[in-house]
Order: sequence, then structure tokens, then C-alpha cells
Amino acid sequence: MFRETHARSVVKAVTWRLTGTVATSVLVFIFTRRLALSLWVGGLEFVSKIGLYWAHERLWDRLPFGKRQVPPAVIWFTGLSGAGKSTIADRVYAELQRRGTRVERLDGDSVRDIFPATGFTRPERDQHVRRIGYLASKLAHNGVSVVASFVSPYEDSRQFVRSLCDQFVEVHVATPLAECERRDSKGLYEKARRGEIRNFTGIDDPYEEPTNPELRLDTAALSVDESVSEVLAYLDRQVLKVK
Amino acid sequence: MFRETHARSVVKAVTWRLTGTVATSVLVFIFTRRLALSLWVGGLEFVSKIGLYWAHERLWDRLPFGKRQVPPAVIWFTGLSGAGKSTIADRVYAELQRRGTRVERLDGDSVRDIFPATGFTRPERDQHVRRIGYLASKLAHNGVSVVASFVSPYEDSRQFVRSLCDQFVEVHVATPLAECERRDSKGLYEKARRGEIRNFTGIDDPYEEPTNPELRLDTAALSVDESVSEVLAYLDRQVLKVK
Repeated sequence: MFRETHARSVVKAVTWRLTGTVATSVLVFIFTRRLALSLWVGGLEFVSKIGLYWAHERLWDRLPFGKRQVPPAVIWFTGLSGAGKSTIADRVYAELQRRGTRVERLDGDSVRDIFPATGFTRPERDQHVRRIGYLASKLAHNGVSVVASFVSPYEDSRQFVRSLCDQFVEVHVATPLAECERRDSKGLYEKARRGEIRNFTGIDDPYEEPTNPELRLDTAALSVDESVSEVLAYLDRQVLKVK
Repeated sequence: MFRETHARSVVKAVTWRLTGTVATSVLVFIFTRRLALSLWVGGLEFVSKIGLYWAHERLWDRLPFGKRQVPPAVIWFTGLSGAGKSTIADRVYAELQRRGTRVERLDGDSVRDIFPATGFTRPERDQHVRRIGYLASKLAHNGVSVVASFVSPYEDSRQFVRSLCDQFVEVHVATPLAECERRDSKGLYEKARRGEIRNFTGIDDPYEEPTNPELRLDTAALSVDESVSEVLAYLDRQVLKVK
């Protein structure tokens, strides 16, 4: 919850008073054509009203009326390893932060660094994605948007996450397997082909394409900049309809 | 993030204007002793300044200066099954909500309902508590306090959660095993004694007492009301030092 500090209320009182005093003095002068009188009224008003304004601000700070939360969303990037999920998600996250949105970033690799015991079998992956989805939904219910990037290969797990969230934006980063394998930035596809890694999505574990994602990014046709813009445009249009 | 709605800014403009116009008219009257003039200045000021005040509010709504967040805390209740964790935690949560704190409630039983596959072996319990702790820390980092109640029997797992959180308040609900077993509100101790449940904390799985909890509640000596008061008093004193 946000509360205003006393300093904010005081500075607001001063900036408002400067505005108000000039207006009052001008009005009095227009009516009376007496400059000294106008300045005296303005001066006394200046002193007395700063105190009144401050009291008015403190009172309103206690009233919740009209303090609106920007509606939070869970923006979930899914796709093969190397598809470009994290790159695009990082950029979307940075832009939302820049706009002052309350937003958290969750990334598959970072979360697995904290929980190294998380396995890659179907039930383990499924539970992992469900738990992250639960975390994301709890953040969203508390007014925090989430930018998540996880391979999240199973339709079931993603549908479960969707069911937990009020505003779920599924972004399928639909880079073809051949292209991901060509990039192979972490050398994982090579290891998976050699059998050094098991249950690797796209090689010996399936990727179930999202049936009805909010967005599908064809990164063969779109640059990173264009992909980011497409996500932000969707959010502006459909989710963050804040005036 | 909180933004003010236009309605809030408009209503604030009106309440402030009523205050200000009366003050201005009185001032002009004191100087001029001309009632009609005073009312005219007040009237014109009334109209023009509502607009100015509104513009001033909208401008300030864009400025983050002085919008302070109430510091969030993770309040973690640990103890045997039947110790009274959930009962006390529910009451603390309700009181924090009543005060307008942004707060989330996480309870062992509810979370296991959503994730029925979570087991009770040592590594499974450990991972479970760590993941919940991660969730709690993410909420806290985003300004949301957390009231969590989990048996969380292992010192290691709890220390991990503590390490993730900036303000961690460990509350040991230290009801003796004999008393928990006597209550046995869910009939679990009986089942565990008969061997129908395995890895039950206190029976065939250890409870490692917190070495240095922020609070230890002796529920043999304290009523629920007194326990709740003790937690709230601690929070007021040590954590939520908000004027």
C-alpha cells in the first residue's frame, strides 16, 4: 500500500500555494485596482492556506477512494530453448519498469539456479511450471504484473497456470526447432543430440504448441525490436488500458 | 503501483475549494468590509481554482516523490501439526488487512490442496518449504507482506527462507507435542501412531526447533487472543514502524 510521506504533502502544499496566491492576488486586483491590498490578501492567504492545504492532504491520504491499481497481468513466454524468450521478455520487463509498473521477472534458468534439484521428467517439469504459475498468480492478485519466460512445454501445465490468473497473456515465441538448433547459444542441443542430456524439449521430449495463445511471435520474420513492440502494443491495447 | 483516478482528483479539488473559498472571502472581507466584493472574489476564485487544483493533482500523480511503501515483512509461523499456527496466523492476517496493509496469506494445507503431488519425505518437504519461501520473498520484494503457516520442520529450509527475505519474522508456535496430540483436531496423530501416515512430524519425522526465532509463543500459557496480540505488538515495535 502506498502512503504519502509528510515531505510530499508539504511540497505539494507549497507548489499549490504559489499557483493559488498568484491567482487570488490577480483577482483581487482586477476587482479593486489596489495593488497593495491585492498583495496583502495574497500574502496572508499564502501563509494561512499552506497549513490548510497540508491538513487537507493528510486527511485524503487516509481515504482509499479513487486510489486505483493499474491492473496486473501475467505475461508468459513459452517456446523452445534458444527461441529468444528471455531476450524478448527482458526487454518487455525493462519497458514496463520504465513506465513505473509494479512488475516481477521470472526466468526458467534463474529459478532453476535457486532450485537445482528440479528435474526434467514430465511430472517434474509439470509441477515446476504449475508452482511458478501459482507464484505468478499470487503476485498478480497483489497488484504485481509478472513477465515469465519458461520453456513450459506442456499444454496441461500452461492451462493450469492460465486458470489461476485473471489476466493471462500467453506469448508463444514460435522460433522453428531448426533455427533454435542452429543458434544453440548454450550448446545444449549438441549435448542433447549426443545423448548427454535427457528429456530435452524438441529432441527427446515433446513441445506441445499452444493451441490458442494471445500472441504468436514468428522470430524468423520479426527482429527482437519488432517482437518487443508487438508484445507492448498488445498490452497497451488489451491489458493496461490505463488513462 | 497506485494511480489516482480522475474522480478522486476532482472530488479532492471540490473539497479543497470549499475550504479555500471560505478562507479567501473572509480575508477579503476583513480587508475591505465589503460583503458583495468578498463574495464575488470568492465566487470567481471558486470556479477558476477548481480547474487549477485538478491540473495540479494530475501533475503530482505522475511524480513518484514521497510516495512511500509500507515496508513488507514475511511472518512465518512454524510448529507441530495442531499447534495452532493457522488459527493465530489467520487472525494476524485479518488484522493486517483491516489496517489496509497489502498482505497475502499462505497456509500449508491450502497449498497442498493445490499441489496434491507434494510428498512428505525429507527432500520433498525441504523443497516445498524452500519454494514457498521463494514465493513469499518475491511477494515481499514487491511490497506485499506475507503471513505464512507451515509445519516447516527443518532448520535448514527455514534458514534458506530467512536468507531470501529482507524482513523475516519467525514465529515458533511452541505447543508441546503431548498437547497437540491430545487436541488431534484432524485425527492425524492417531493415524500416524497406527502407522497409516508415514513421515509425520513429531511421530516418525523430527521437528527441529528454531534456534533463534523472533518470537516463541507458548500456547499452553497464552490464549489465542494473547498470542495474536503478542505477534501484532512485535510487528508494531520492530517492523511496521509507520507513522
